[in-house]
Amino acid sequence: MALAEFREPDQPGWTRRVFFEPYRKSRNWTAALMAGAGLEVRRDPVGNLLGELPGADPQLPQIVIGSHTDTVAGGGRFDGVVGVVGAVEVVRLLSAVGRPLRHPLLVVDFLGEEPNRFGLSCLGSRAVTGQLHQDHLRLRDENDLSLGEALLQAGGSPDELECGLWRRQRLLAYLELHIEQGSRLERAGIPLGVVSAISGIHRAVITITGRPDHAGTAAMDERRDALAAAAEVVLSLERLAAEVREGASGVGTVGRLELSPGAANVVPGWARAWAELRSTDSTWLAGRHLALEASIREMAAARRVGVEVDWVSAEPPVGCAPGARLLIAEAAAELGYRQMELSSGASHDAAQLARLCPVGMIFIPSRDGRSHCPEEWSEPEQVARGVSALLAAVLRLDRADSL
Amino acid sequence: MALAEFREPDQPGWTRRVFFEPYRKSRNWTAALMAGAGLEVRRDPVGNLLGELPGADPQLPQIVIGSHTDTVAGGGRFDGVVGVVGAVEVVRLLSAVGRPLRHPLLVVDFLGEEPNRFGLSCLGSRAVTGQLHQDHLRLRDENDLSLGEALLQAGGSPDELECGLWRRQRLLAYLELHIEQGSRLERAGIPLGVVSAISGIHRAVITITGRPDHAGTAAMDERRDALAAAAEVVLSLERLAAEVREGASGVGTVGRLELSPGAANVVPGWARAWAELRSTDSTWLAGRHLALEASIREMAAARRVGVEVDWVSAEPPVGCAPGARLLIAEAAAELGYRQMELSSGASHDAAQLARLCPVGMIFIPSRDGRSHCPEEWSEPEQVARGVSALLAAVLRLDRADSL
Repeated sequence: MALAEFREPDQPGWTRRVFFEPYRKSRNWTAALMAGAGLEVRRDPVGNLLGELPGADPQLPQIVIGSHTDTVAGGGRFDGVVGVVGAVEVVRLLSAVGRPLRHPLLVVDFLGEEPNRFGLSCLGSRAVTGQLHQDHLRLRDENDLSLGEALLQAGGSPDELECGLWRRQRLLAYLELHIEQGSRLERAGIPLGVVSAISGIHRAVITITGRPDHAGTAAMDERRDALAAAAEVVLSLERLAAEVREGASGVGTVGRLELSPGAANVVPGWARAWAELRSTDSTWLAGRHLALEASIREMAAARRVGVEVDWVSAEPPVGCAPGARLLIAEAAAELGYRQMELSSGASHDAAQLARLCPVGMIFIPSRDGRSHCPEEWSEPEQVARGVSALLAAVLRLDRADSL
Repeated sequence: MALAEFREPDQPGWTRRVFFEPYRKSRNWTAALMAGAGLEVRRDPVGNLLGELPGADPQLPQIVIGSHTDTVAGGGRFDGVVGVVGAVEVVRLLSAVGRPLRHPLLVVDFLGEEPNRFGLSCLGSRAVTGQLHQDHLRLRDENDLSLGEALLQAGGSPDELECGLWRRQRLLAYLELHIEQGSRLERAGIPLGVVSAISGIHRAVITITGRPDHAGTAAMDERRDALAAAAEVVLSLERLAAEVREGASGVGTVGRLELSPGAANVVPGWARAWAELRSTDSTWLAGRHLALEASIREMAAARRVGVEVDWVSAEPPVGCAPGARLLIAEAAAELGYRQMELSSGASHDAAQLARLCPVGMIFIPSRDGRSHCPEEWSEPEQVARGVSALLAAVLRLDRADSL
């Protein structure tokens, strides 16, 4: 709740977007929280906030726990935050118990996990794995600022990112506590979810160039209306995403749409749509990706509009490590908590970290399954159970030499 | 071209929207132009700029000429401007000839003819006829400012508008010179158009309330996607507007669409579309209006979204006065210019003035039929022919006692 006070005053809900002032300020609060729990705090070249706890044996690989503290516009107070604040709480509890871990522990608040105005999510976790490329750094927002420039302004060093900040680090595993953002746990009355897989996400920015015309004088059959074209894209994506193929399913969304000139009496001459497809099934994803692209081309030819489809990211589905799943299930059982396996429709920093080490995720219930909205809520005791499970999993992991 | 220098620096094209600073400044320039031509200049309670030229017989009704000087976002340099600057040029030519008119002449630069952020066009010409009601003054923009407050801030006195500023004035006729904003004159190679009728316009603000959900976790069949709902509205309107009924046709446009929250990974929970239908046939208009409303209701029920359809204006088609059409045709013939009759798909201040007196309109060609865009263009000699025809029509009208 204290972190939620850092919010953008002109935005609905609990908005704390990456690169905006409230987010920047909030991270000093988070750094102080980390330091207060005994972590040695630093920021890396992309702007990840890192808190280190030395292990009894400094030669052993690191255990990494954490999540992110940025939100979407109009977002809530739990998505990501539970994983960061919960990780710091694990450190506080370890210190209260007075028993050092064998492995070094790293708590991370990854920079900008949510999609932002550059159209690229998971900035911090991409950077540690070497997946933040020069192409990404050249992405521009609506003010023509590049992502590289935004990182530089935020105090980062984008030049150092190409090869991956953690490429030479030895990692035992990455564990992330997160809210479910769906309603399966709540409906099943089960307090903990063990994540089996994280959906892959294909994201496209679709730019349509028609012709702006006077809305009163241009006949219907001579128009090249960019909004009508975009409307067809929205409905095609919705129809394609609803299709189940060989038992596999997924979702698809256009969440953002911009128009120009955007006046009531001018036929829109330009439109840009931000579209995405998600599934834990890579065949479904690839099929819907191609079908969407084909339907857009066909629409553009029929309407005589120009179209550019820029697939800004295509993240494959990621399976959580079998060893991590077992570890979390055993930790939950040890605490007497019921748990169930489930997949994640949302993506997470863990999907990026899977490139470097085994990953595991613990879900706690979201009231009414609501997320990315001001109503997002998990009860304090639900959060506490998640933190307890994360602590128990870290302790179990510390006794192991590999996963 | 001098007036076009007053433009909004952060907008494309030649943008000079009502209530914005460049528009406010530009009207001092226009007032100075009027005063320089010998007109006695004043502003009325809504913010119309009026230039009066006394007639030899002050008992006779006024001849009114003019148009507007505001533009749409991303607009051009001719729409409206030709009618105001052309009217001042008529006064300058009358003075050069040294012959006073019998009738008093009134040159008007009407406030805010183009649609604005309150969703209401023709502010100034509505006000003079008594069609700017309390309901209109309560319309609010996205910053929750009301139209009444905006008028007050701009120096107007909205309290005085209800009954119509010109209700007690005696008017002989209103003549407006304007660009065609279509390509019929250009294609026919004819320099002057005599307007037979002005399209009626029905405008609706359609607000859709769905539910914002996480784009990864909300299944397709449980979504209430406000953008997908809006996309159906856009395509329904396009389909309905393309229908020809009993020989009558028209056009329909959604020119503006807003979304919330508008993030790539959130299902849009709210959308608002600004829609309009236009035709010179009132039966076609009424039929499309009802069909659109029905299709929106059906869509909303199927998609379980809330919908509000607010018809903010429903202007009937307006015929130009037969006497005014004849007068303009004779004036053109006297000057040796070819002319043709045509209807106007765009609305104009003349459509409002028709409530008070006979109206006539003169069109000049628009290059490639383009308008409401930076490319809008008419050649200087095309503008000059229009001004000559307006002068000749005013002189003919001055010899008449009625139309």
